Amino acid sequence: MSLRPISVTPIGEVYTATPDDQIGRLRKRLISEIKIYSQYVEATEGLELYSHIFVLFWMDKLKSTGNLTCHPRGKRDITKVGVLSARGRNHPNPIGLAVCELIEIHQGVLTVRKLDAYNGSKVIDIKPYDDYDQVANLKLPPWLRDLRT
Amino acid sequence: MSLRPISVTPIGEVYTATPDDQIGRLRKRLISEIKIYSQYVEATEGLELYSHIFVLFWMDKLKSTGNLTCHPRGKRDITKVGVLSARGRNHPNPIGLAVCELIEIHQGVLTVRKLDAYNGSKVIDIKPYDDYDQVANLKLPPWLRDLRT
Repeated sequence: MSLRPISVTPIGEVYTATPDDQIGRLRKRLISEIKIYSQYVEATEGLELYSHIFVLFWMDKLKSTGNLTCHPRGKRDITKVGVLSARGRNHPNPIGLAVCELIEIHQGVLTVRKLDAYNGSKVIDIKPYDDYDQVANLKLPPWLRDLRT
Repeated sequence: MSLRPISVTPIGEVYTATPDDQIGRLRKRLISEIKIYSQYVEATEGLELYSHIFVLFWMDKLKSTGNLTCHPRGKRDITKVGVLSARGRNHPNPIGLAVCELIEIHQGVLTVRKLDAYNGSKVIDIKPYDDYDQVANLKLPPWLRDLRT
């Protein structure tokens, strides 16, 4: 068992005028910018031909509780689950993953919709959303289905 | 601009009997195991209620070329694109992202289908695949569409 830490280098930063405490609520219609650091801009060539991307970012503003279980979405009437099952913000490594619509790229700045990252968050990777990533016959837990209805 | 490295802690490891050089070719039908380190097993409670998960892993066996552009899939007849646009293995941070079918969880071991990680790869995060992650009207580059036909 190896727990030697791995070192990740940020490749860009998120800019949004939306206050942190509004990000979750407004997620679906949020428009944000990702400024790719100049030394990595070349790596984004051709990304404009995709409609959607995965954005991996570092949620460094979060104060982790260190707990391994939680009430999903903080709702105490839902039975606790493991933090890796809650799709929340409190996992062992605070890596955020968002599926975003890519609206535009211009001079190393990506304009995206649906990125639930706070202003100033460091971006650690971007991946095009491929048709391999589409899942049919998806099964979700009852508590999550109930939240959506 | 901050390029201070971020430290990520592995939460588990990938086990597969498939040789590294066969992983890509066999991806669609690969069955692998993810052994979650004992101190994080509690965090996976409730994950069994999802049919699919994202697995984030560290591709530490890769020798990065350091190049920021590449021929997609190594095919020299396809014009070079930025490494972040190729959905290949050579990006600034060697983080792998795979959408996997979750077949079973038993005593901290996740059995998954379609994980294209080499044997021994460190897992850094697991996220349930949510219906928010499904994209309709996906647009892909012509070179990728051509590869699929």
